[in-house]
Amino acid sequence: MQQSGTQSPSCTGSYPSVSECFPLGSLSTAACGSETAPMPQKGEASTQGCPQLADPFKMRSTVNFYLCYLLCLALGLACVVCVCLWNSRWRGGFAWDGSALQFNWHPVLMVTGLVVLYGYGAVLYRVPLTWGQNKLPWKLLHAALMLISLILSILGLYAVFNFHNANKIANLYSLHSWIGIAAVALFAVQWAVGFAGFLLPCSPVLLRKLLKPAHVWLGGSILLLSVAACISGINEKLFFVLKANLRGAEPYSNLPAEAVLGNSLGALIVAFGLVVLNILSNIKWQRPDSRPQDMAYTPLLQEEND
Amino acid sequence: MQQSGTQSPSCTGSYPSVSECFPLGSLSTAACGSETAPMPQKGEASTQGCPQLADPFKMRSTVNFYLCYLLCLALGLACVVCVCLWNSRWRGGFAWDGSALQFNWHPVLMVTGLVVLYGYGAVLYRVPLTWGQNKLPWKLLHAALMLISLILSILGLYAVFNFHNANKIANLYSLHSWIGIAAVALFAVQWAVGFAGFLLPCSPVLLRKLLKPAHVWLGGSILLLSVAACISGINEKLFFVLKANLRGAEPYSNLPAEAVLGNSLGALIVAFGLVVLNILSNIKWQRPDSRPQDMAYTPLLQEEND
Repeated sequence: MQQSGTQSPSCTGSYPSVSECFPLGSLSTAACGSETAPMPQKGEASTQGCPQLADPFKMRSTVNFYLCYLLCLALGLACVVCVCLWNSRWRGGFAWDGSALQFNWHPVLMVTGLVVLYGYGAVLYRVPLTWGQNKLPWKLLHAALMLISLILSILGLYAVFNFHNANKIANLYSLHSWIGIAAVALFAVQWAVGFAGFLLPCSPVLLRKLLKPAHVWLGGSILLLSVAACISGINEKLFFVLKANLRGAEPYSNLPAEAVLGNSLGALIVAFGLVVLNILSNIKWQRPDSRPQDMAYTPLLQEEND
Repeated sequence: MQQSGTQSPSCTGSYPSVSECFPLGSLSTAACGSETAPMPQKGEASTQGCPQLADPFKMRSTVNFYLCYLLCLALGLACVVCVCLWNSRWRGGFAWDGSALQFNWHPVLMVTGLVVLYGYGAVLYRVPLTWGQNKLPWKLLHAALMLISLILSILGLYAVFNFHNANKIANLYSLHSWIGIAAVALFAVQWAVGFAGFLLPCSPVLLRKLLKPAHVWLGGSILLLSVAACISGINEKLFFVLKANLRGAEPYSNLPAEAVLGNSLGALIVAFGLVVLNILSNIKWQRPDSRPQDMAYTPLLQEEND
């Protein structure tokens, strides 16, 4: 998808517009450069032709990114804190003995792995601090974060399957479970194909180019499935446990503290998903060497380069 | 966001690559044109410089779009058929008398309005047949489809509030209801601001430019909220009604026919949402006058132009 730096566009006016000279947009930078100006290298944004505008816009874009990234980190952390608090304080804590306490690992591991760590791994390439260096370490970190995320998700599934089997409860009948298992299955395929296609040295460049749009599209789709699975799962769990006749518990409809916490966890997960997708879809925040020069294809989530 | 057609890029090689000459991508078309070649007009793709490649790629892109669009239409139709079938055949049909039959309007109206019609309205500008003409009628159609979608959604909310009130059931306590009400509230704000900003003749161009990224981002976010609300709602409803002790019904865990239908409806809604987001995020399928020339900002869902 990437081209060499031989494009030769020109400025359209005597004073370049914001969009023509946006210093983090490689095409717009090229639009203000000379006929032979090379494309900016990793970690730098060319200001040729537009020195008077480049830095303020670069600064603003970088500040905006870090604000959004900070929000992403904070929301992810809040999700993990909420789900841990809910299951430790209101649901009795954790165990691995087939009891309800084993089930409590399920929401904690799924939210932490399939949503938060997954989201953190997806936005990794957007952090400008990583742009000036060799990409390989960041690809390895991306793959490692995603692998930890996948392992936590599989452990989370194992926790609930094991709990169900120990208590003679059927598996995989609810819509929540269908969406959730689809998310994890697709994630496993995504990781394996991503590893083979983007990290193995023997993988041909042509294969990477063919794989990339599918990898990118599937990456976003898995996040959407994960969020939908989490929302339906939290909703289902709160209906299960907050019943008036269940050990003196207040019903869900009275919105006791646990219900407010569970609902807030759901709202935080949705907000986290939206912030991650917003970061991934903003082309200004892509690695300079990842931005499509030809506009032939701009994927929803440009999270992986060749 | 749009620029005049004075860009003057060049081909990077003697034989243009696929990405350089992609005829539906205005930047790539320009990359194969002459120094003074104007940008292609609405409804046409320039083939200057790359006549040998332009038509096959344009054809392939158009065919791919229509296949995807057909899938979108078919999935949306399947969602409506499924939700109607579920509520008419398995849930006893419809009424407006405060009974459970009134509740049945809720899933039908929300899926039809907030998901399917909303999705159809969002992808309207992507249909190449609409590109060669004045945009105003399509803006009016977009606004009209969204208004019908909003009215159906509000009717769907009214149906469930009215049913709850008649049966002394609390409103707005579940996570499903929180996500759903947030989706409809944001949709109402989106429609009103979109109408004032993009359709009223007195709306200044600068305001439209400022509004557009927010309109586009919020448009995608509302669809994600809608899908999450539908999944959690269907899941909740199936747990409510499929209980072994409820009038001889088979429990959800036995996966009776109704459970399979409900789960399939959920899977169809997720698939529809993903196809809509895929169409909206593919820059090749945008109106030629909507594609960002400067790469300063490429939103997730480029559904509305200034």
